[in-house]
Amino acid sequence: MRATVMYGAGDVRVENVPDAQLVEPTDALVRVTRAAICGSDLWPYKSMEPTESGRRMGHEFIGVVEEAGSDVGTVKAGDLVVAPFLWSDGTCVFCREGLHTSCLHGGRYGDPGVDGGQGEAVRVPQADGTLVVLPVEQDDALMPSLLTLSDVMSTGHHAALSARVGPGKTVAVVGDGAVGLCGVIAAKRLGAERVILLGRNPARTALGRELGADEVVEERGDEAVECVRELTDGFGVHSALECVGLVDSMLTALHATRPGGAVGRVGVPQEDSIPDGTPTFFRNISIAGGGAPARAYIEGLLPDVLEGTIEPGRVFDRTTDLDGVPDGYRAMNDREALKVLVEP
Amino acid sequence: MRATVMYGAGDVRVENVPDAQLVEPTDALVRVTRAAICGSDLWPYKSMEPTESGRRMGHEFIGVVEEAGSDVGTVKAGDLVVAPFLWSDGTCVFCREGLHTSCLHGGRYGDPGVDGGQGEAVRVPQADGTLVVLPVEQDDALMPSLLTLSDVMSTGHHAALSARVGPGKTVAVVGDGAVGLCGVIAAKRLGAERVILLGRNPARTALGRELGADEVVEERGDEAVECVRELTDGFGVHSALECVGLVDSMLTALHATRPGGAVGRVGVPQEDSIPDGTPTFFRNISIAGGGAPARAYIEGLLPDVLEGTIEPGRVFDRTTDLDGVPDGYRAMNDREALKVLVEP
Repeated sequence: MRATVMYGAGDVRVENVPDAQLVEPTDALVRVTRAAICGSDLWPYKSMEPTESGRRMGHEFIGVVEEAGSDVGTVKAGDLVVAPFLWSDGTCVFCREGLHTSCLHGGRYGDPGVDGGQGEAVRVPQADGTLVVLPVEQDDALMPSLLTLSDVMSTGHHAALSARVGPGKTVAVVGDGAVGLCGVIAAKRLGAERVILLGRNPARTALGRELGADEVVEERGDEAVECVRELTDGFGVHSALECVGLVDSMLTALHATRPGGAVGRVGVPQEDSIPDGTPTFFRNISIAGGGAPARAYIEGLLPDVLEGTIEPGRVFDRTTDLDGVPDGYRAMNDREALKVLVEP
Repeated sequence: MRATVMYGAGDVRVENVPDAQLVEPTDALVRVTRAAICGSDLWPYKSMEPTESGRRMGHEFIGVVEEAGSDVGTVKAGDLVVAPFLWSDGTCVFCREGLHTSCLHGGRYGDPGVDGGQGEAVRVPQADGTLVVLPVEQDDALMPSLLTLSDVMSTGHHAALSARVGPGKTVAVVGDGAVGLCGVIAAKRLGAERVILLGRNPARTALGRELGADEVVEERGDEAVECVRELTDGFGVHSALECVGLVDSMLTALHATRPGGAVGRVGVPQEDSIPDGTPTFFRNISIAGGGAPARAYIEGLLPDVLEGTIEPGRVFDRTTDLDGVPDGYRAMNDREALKVLVEP
């Protein structure tokens, strides 16, 4: 079969790999119908050391179950399923607590021996604890929005929950990428009174407004913080969603948050320490979040997608076949595309 | 009147200062009957640059109202009152949200123009929003425990709330100082199933056991984390209370916490960044806390102190008059005394 492999920074290839097949009785074999390129794929695209073996890529996909292992009970051949960006057993202590990202028997697509989502098919380990059946046809117009449940919409939701968004809250979303835009959707969905999107890409912030942002702040750094404070009686927001992962964006999120407020961080941190620990101490700012337990959120978000109440699929602005995936990486890295949908 | 003044590291003096007196109609003049030396007083005791003017010290006290300003309605001459470690108006947006530490019109004892608690009397600004009347006589045996409401017991409670302690939770308390021991009390009071105290001073950890700690871990750093994990099925605790403020103690708290758990930090940070932001991201550890809004907690904790359900006053192991305050600082700094009570 054909699949996407990254061999180093800037070096993404689509090539023939061994066919995906069942290994464990808890596996399912899924023929991919839709996949995506993720903002987090761009970190290795920028910095990965060259390797000879390469790394299979892609962790967001929808597909049709082709075969289910003998121990799999919740999905069967022919089911259309969405996969969260990590696989998990659904039964361990952390899964039962809703933290599937820390599953004791879970793992990542693309790790050695596991396929990636940007390919023709995927062996999905722990299929019962991982896959969610979608009650639609495989070419339904909702595919882009359903696909975001595997990562970016669930991640935006995690950011909003971690930042304690709720009715009456003012919210700042730092970052106008796909996750930030999904954060806007999630904040509005949770009842936020006012959502301020921080970003400077006109097309993305315009989309952010359509998705629910009440205000856009194009400034950066201290100037952005000043703008947010001016919009919030001088105090800052109750909740800030950090959807980038850089020290500067975390500083913006922390400084834009009012005393007693919360920062929900979902941007994968690119440096190891969290800045400004002392000022945030005296202002009692909470810092929460991390990798989103998408599996815990899919079933809750799904009805809103099916009813069209939320349209997170609008973050996709380009579609490609498998051959176009390397150029999709380039386009996203050049900020020419916001998010690329793949139809293998 | 006589009061404690710090002129630099290690240089604490008790000397004559201008008598405390009403300045604003919202002030109350309080004759101090009990005060305390705080662990946080030791940070300037270790590092304060020498000054000629000095800084008035002390922020934990109980006293009798001698005179109330014309706008004060909730306390009157003769009332016995406890003061939280910051003053606050009780009416601003942050006070109404229970975050009196961020009061828009609040401030700190010892700041220029404001008395400190380690003296004969204190002008308390914003008396209505600050002072809480105690329904006991001024020499009641409960005085030590009541005095802890001004800071260390309220701070331990803040750590526990910030770490999301509740029924069924396993809890690690990092630090066996007065705040850590109050953290043990607070965690048990909030229903923690199991409290592990990390400390190595035998007298303090023994007291910690009496106050509710189920286990004591004397190791430090990685070894301490290993011990906590062994005690918790290999996972770590749901809640860690960081009651020291050093990078190493924060690391211990973060590493001892299980995925999805929370660190409540109340030790005043001695360095500006929070370590290990990436591992804690992937483990979804929350970091919350800061300066404790003691004023928000006093009325809730007071009944338990009056009924003897909790005995935080046991953290005091030395009593002195005003003349003995400088030696009290020395004794606490040398870890010869745990916490010093002052009877002016």
